[in-house]
Amino acid sequence: MRLRGKKNAPELLANLPNLVITEPTAHKGKWSQVFGNDRPIYVELGMGKGQFVTEMSVKYPNINFIGIDMYDELIARASEKAMAVSERAGGAEQHPSNLRLMRANIEFMETFFEENELSRIYLNFSDPWPKKKHARRRLTHPRFLEKYALVMNEWGEIHQKTDSETLFEFSLNAYAHMEYLMKDISLNLHRDGIHEEHVMTEYEQKFFEKGMNIHRVEVLIGEAAVKQHREAKLKGMK
Amino acid sequence: MRLRGKKNAPELLANLPNLVITEPTAHKGKWSQVFGNDRPIYVELGMGKGQFVTEMSVKYPNINFIGIDMYDELIARASEKAMAVSERAGGAEQHPSNLRLMRANIEFMETFFEENELSRIYLNFSDPWPKKKHARRRLTHPRFLEKYALVMNEWGEIHQKTDSETLFEFSLNAYAHMEYLMKDISLNLHRDGIHEEHVMTEYEQKFFEKGMNIHRVEVLIGEAAVKQHREAKLKGMK
Repeated sequence: MRLRGKKNAPELLANLPNLVITEPTAHKGKWSQVFGNDRPIYVELGMGKGQFVTEMSVKYPNINFIGIDMYDELIARASEKAMAVSERAGGAEQHPSNLRLMRANIEFMETFFEENELSRIYLNFSDPWPKKKHARRRLTHPRFLEKYALVMNEWGEIHQKTDSETLFEFSLNAYAHMEYLMKDISLNLHRDGIHEEHVMTEYEQKFFEKGMNIHRVEVLIGEAAVKQHREAKLKGMK
Repeated sequence: MRLRGKKNAPELLANLPNLVITEPTAHKGKWSQVFGNDRPIYVELGMGKGQFVTEMSVKYPNINFIGIDMYDELIARASEKAMAVSERAGGAEQHPSNLRLMRANIEFMETFFEENELSRIYLNFSDPWPKKKHARRRLTHPRFLEKYALVMNEWGEIHQKTDSETLFEFSLNAYAHMEYLMKDISLNLHRDGIHEEHVMTEYEQKFFEKGMNIHRVEVLIGEAAVKQHREAKLKGMK
């Protein structure tokens, strides 16, 4: 079933009830029920065509993943990817059971996630909104960071990748402004080549092939994540 | 008096007792006496030919500056610069009275500065020591950061500039590791052209002309510096 470019994508997507979430606000505080387990939930905000989130869901079956984007067309493409990776992985299921895709506007994310409901947020190649007057739309603007902090639990982390030097600079300053702990900051992720274990997005692959720098950072938001990091640091110093 | 390339540079430097410090350890805890006042002391570690520290000393007469490097030749060059900028500024003095130059190995900085004696450390275009086995020599290695924290007072800040992507990446991670507050992180300092008020180093000018990225960050070490930053942030949010 090819969904791409089909005008009736919304209807087709409605036929994948265990993959595509059609009412984002219906599951607030009840996402564990959606997945049928209490495992950590990782969300990709702006998944695009879904390569990253679908591959991650196959690679990490003990984590629940939700991919979010704004357009039915992208949900349709990501659905195809989900089915393709599942087939490639030789799974019995039509698509990974630990994956959900959802068309939603991140602006209203507190209406679809309860406090403490998420463990990780991925921001991959988000729109840099280069004009200063659009700074508030950047997904690492402090007003968004405050939303993320609210819906993430004590293990909460943000993992960000971007090719945009200006967005990365803005983001580092926003994290510093919020006094969030950062780690594994990279100004050129693939400097030493590609790591096998590293799941790439569509953009990333393209940019990497063009020789462009990918920037990456992990941000520790939750108290337990910060504590664990500090303990590991102390051990490393011994 | 041209000192450059002269074999007897050490002797000539000894003739500038109010500019060149010949015994670094002699003034530990007594730098205010050297300058004859209690004003803040800013130190540039690795001043090279001294353009930055000499120009800063003329631009900020109410701050005391110390430029440090490892070789007599560099001290000689910086001395010439100090005399030249003083002349250009039309000062009555032979060189800025708020400036000292010193040949010393930063490795032993706790032997020439007392706890709380400095207010700011400038790291401009420090040697990136790109090989992993030399990481400990990088001036932003945590073992150096600990030294800096010791000799800086409650207003202590580190201001770093570098063209080296790898050194900057290493440094950001080192600051994050130490849980230091960062601000004004820039991945391309001259993206929008050169700012009048910005004093450039020799390297910086050369790199800028070649169109290379300069990275910059300010790091807040002292408690008062952190407190002031937080208060300004709260005001900005109102």
